[in-house]
Amino acid sequence: MIFKAPGGKIEADFPAASSRRENRKEANDLMVTIHQGRVRRIAEEMNRQGLDQLLITSMSSVFYLTSRRIDPGERCMAIYITGEGQATVLFNILFAIPEVEGARLLLYSDSENPVERLAGLIRPGKLGVDKTWPSHFLIDLMPRVPDTVMVNGSPVVDLVRMVKDEEELELMRRASRINDQAVARAIGMISPELTELQLSRATTEAYAQLGVKNLRNTPIVAYGAHCAEPHHGPDDTRLQPGDNVLFDIGKNIDGYNCDMTRTVAYRSAGELQRKIYQIVLEANLAGIAAVKPGVRCCDVDRAARQVIEKAGYGEYFTHRTGHNIGIDVHEFPDIGPRCELEIVPGMVFSIEPGIYLPGSVGVRIEDLVIVTENGCENLNSYTKELQIVG
Amino acid sequence: MIFKAPGGKIEADFPAASSRRENRKEANDLMVTIHQGRVRRIAEEMNRQGLDQLLITSMSSVFYLTSRRIDPGERCMAIYITGEGQATVLFNILFAIPEVEGARLLLYSDSENPVERLAGLIRPGKLGVDKTWPSHFLIDLMPRVPDTVMVNGSPVVDLVRMVKDEEELELMRRASRINDQAVARAIGMISPELTELQLSRATTEAYAQLGVKNLRNTPIVAYGAHCAEPHHGPDDTRLQPGDNVLFDIGKNIDGYNCDMTRTVAYRSAGELQRKIYQIVLEANLAGIAAVKPGVRCCDVDRAARQVIEKAGYGEYFTHRTGHNIGIDVHEFPDIGPRCELEIVPGMVFSIEPGIYLPGSVGVRIEDLVIVTENGCENLNSYTKELQIVG
Repeated sequence: MIFKAPGGKIEADFPAASSRRENRKEANDLMVTIHQGRVRRIAEEMNRQGLDQLLITSMSSVFYLTSRRIDPGERCMAIYITGEGQATVLFNILFAIPEVEGARLLLYSDSENPVERLAGLIRPGKLGVDKTWPSHFLIDLMPRVPDTVMVNGSPVVDLVRMVKDEEELELMRRASRINDQAVARAIGMISPELTELQLSRATTEAYAQLGVKNLRNTPIVAYGAHCAEPHHGPDDTRLQPGDNVLFDIGKNIDGYNCDMTRTVAYRSAGELQRKIYQIVLEANLAGIAAVKPGVRCCDVDRAARQVIEKAGYGEYFTHRTGHNIGIDVHEFPDIGPRCELEIVPGMVFSIEPGIYLPGSVGVRIEDLVIVTENGCENLNSYTKELQIVG
Repeated sequence: MIFKAPGGKIEADFPAASSRRENRKEANDLMVTIHQGRVRRIAEEMNRQGLDQLLITSMSSVFYLTSRRIDPGERCMAIYITGEGQATVLFNILFAIPEVEGARLLLYSDSENPVERLAGLIRPGKLGVDKTWPSHFLIDLMPRVPDTVMVNGSPVVDLVRMVKDEEELELMRRASRINDQAVARAIGMISPELTELQLSRATTEAYAQLGVKNLRNTPIVAYGAHCAEPHHGPDDTRLQPGDNVLFDIGKNIDGYNCDMTRTVAYRSAGELQRKIYQIVLEANLAGIAAVKPGVRCCDVDRAARQVIEKAGYGEYFTHRTGHNIGIDVHEFPDIGPRCELEIVPGMVFSIEPGIYLPGSVGVRIEDLVIVTENGCENLNSYTKELQIVG
């Protein structure tokens, strides 16, 4: 494999409308435009949190501000934002982004130390630092700015990215429409000929046929008792009549993620399977019905969870009801029992209750919803009625 | 997708001999044994570098010491090592590792702060910190140990992991034997029916048939002028008679990586293609012939590069000659013009010269070699003679 180290690569496989070669051209030749509105919202949140300078370094947050997914490898990449809303972008020349509109651009080469360049920007006082910035950059930076105290700056970005703007919502609607089609094709391929792994790979192929370029996430496919293992990875197991088949699938499409789960029965469904399915479906619907601005995340969790608890299966619903989603599959906050954050319009999260009877039956049903002014918009329309297939 | 956040997952898909279900059982139920010899070598290198405490946090280095690949997600994972060779392992209880042999084990739950536990171990003076440790842990740790100065501790681990022990070498030999078979199957599937992307996916399927479980890396397949783009990602391009076809492929098998490149011609090869191929082949052979203990990395680079330079194509060999490889695909050091490190037995690296004539012809030929007492052992035996296929 070509040695790119110490890193530096443009992932140009997001814009699905054009070919990869065109994408590469775009990525290499065209100027990056900083989303001014997003920088402004970040600066406002910084002021609210009492932070007057912030270093953004994660690929996802850089994508949020630039619409360009840049994998810096081992190299340093940062966007420095001040409380006044001024942005400075620090890129290696090898990222092949010669120009940036709406921000100051600092380019460095491999013979320069990017941290030294950053140090020249930083003021005394507090500096918010992206939570995942590799420690060695921070260790290099600190002695260069001895009057600056480092704090975790990610809560600012998390809160801003939590609420999607209309451009983001459109991309998320589109991604989930493709996911609805993918799940339909995946369910249509269920066959005793295919192991879990083979059906998982066939599902990836279905995404490819639907024009999805980024095929990285492995589709979760579980048969029978494996459906009762919430983190099951597909293996060589074959399908038996009477098994449940669970698909938990999604891709990053044009930079935004979709994510849904459907459980169907193969050939027949026993009484316990039907009963569990109906409880989980009711919990999914109750969770969705509870979503509206002003309600807390834990209230949505409660609405779904109490259906399962009342039916006597509370101990078998072993995870949170959902998670916020967007550029990353799992974003802040989680829809769980301890999250007291109030829901606001523009949040997008999953509602995915499940019941897992070890060694026996497992069911999970997951949709994504956008919070609206009065309730929510469900991004998934594929049926949730129990299907017996094959 | 199930909300695992803030993370915590055992990747149990490495031991290829047993089924995934057995692997999971192993991963969950069995004790972890710390490699005492590897801890000792790290402590020795710490003493050499004047460091009396070190925090190891990367998945790869934790795997190196435990043979267990644990993805901590957003959670904290660390192995604290002292200059006396004492190791303390800090794991979340959700990593499901109840016991560790050969080290002290600190387990924490989600209601505890792991960084507070770590702070209790750390002495005044210097602390080496893994270069990729997420900054927010370091930001939390520093005020708790005000008499400790943080330094980048990764050069210690890099130098130790650079030299493989016999157990590692056996795994790397085996991985490359499988890679030789995979490249043979991939070349056998070349067909005008398949686009680059389809042939890439068929190559992944070939690995699956060879029993490889971890199929994450996308095989690089390039046709025609795409072979002249060293970072080409496979797309919808179709094969034309007279095209070169380049495969740059490898997988992580039982925890260790293989990586090789072969270029063949489809139906026919023009004069320029043949000429370029022979130069690159000669450069590959010259690089391999130069490998022996005491020679510097830059000398190996030079040996390969001067063949290409003498032939007049120096400016079209745009990358380093190779990279060390092991648990990670790219490890320290690189086999490049500026690396003056002396080669020692037990190093494993790639020799992968290439010539890339933009928009026209591209050829790369890559093998992995183990440095031996007198020279090197080539891990790849698939032919390097120019093949005309189809």
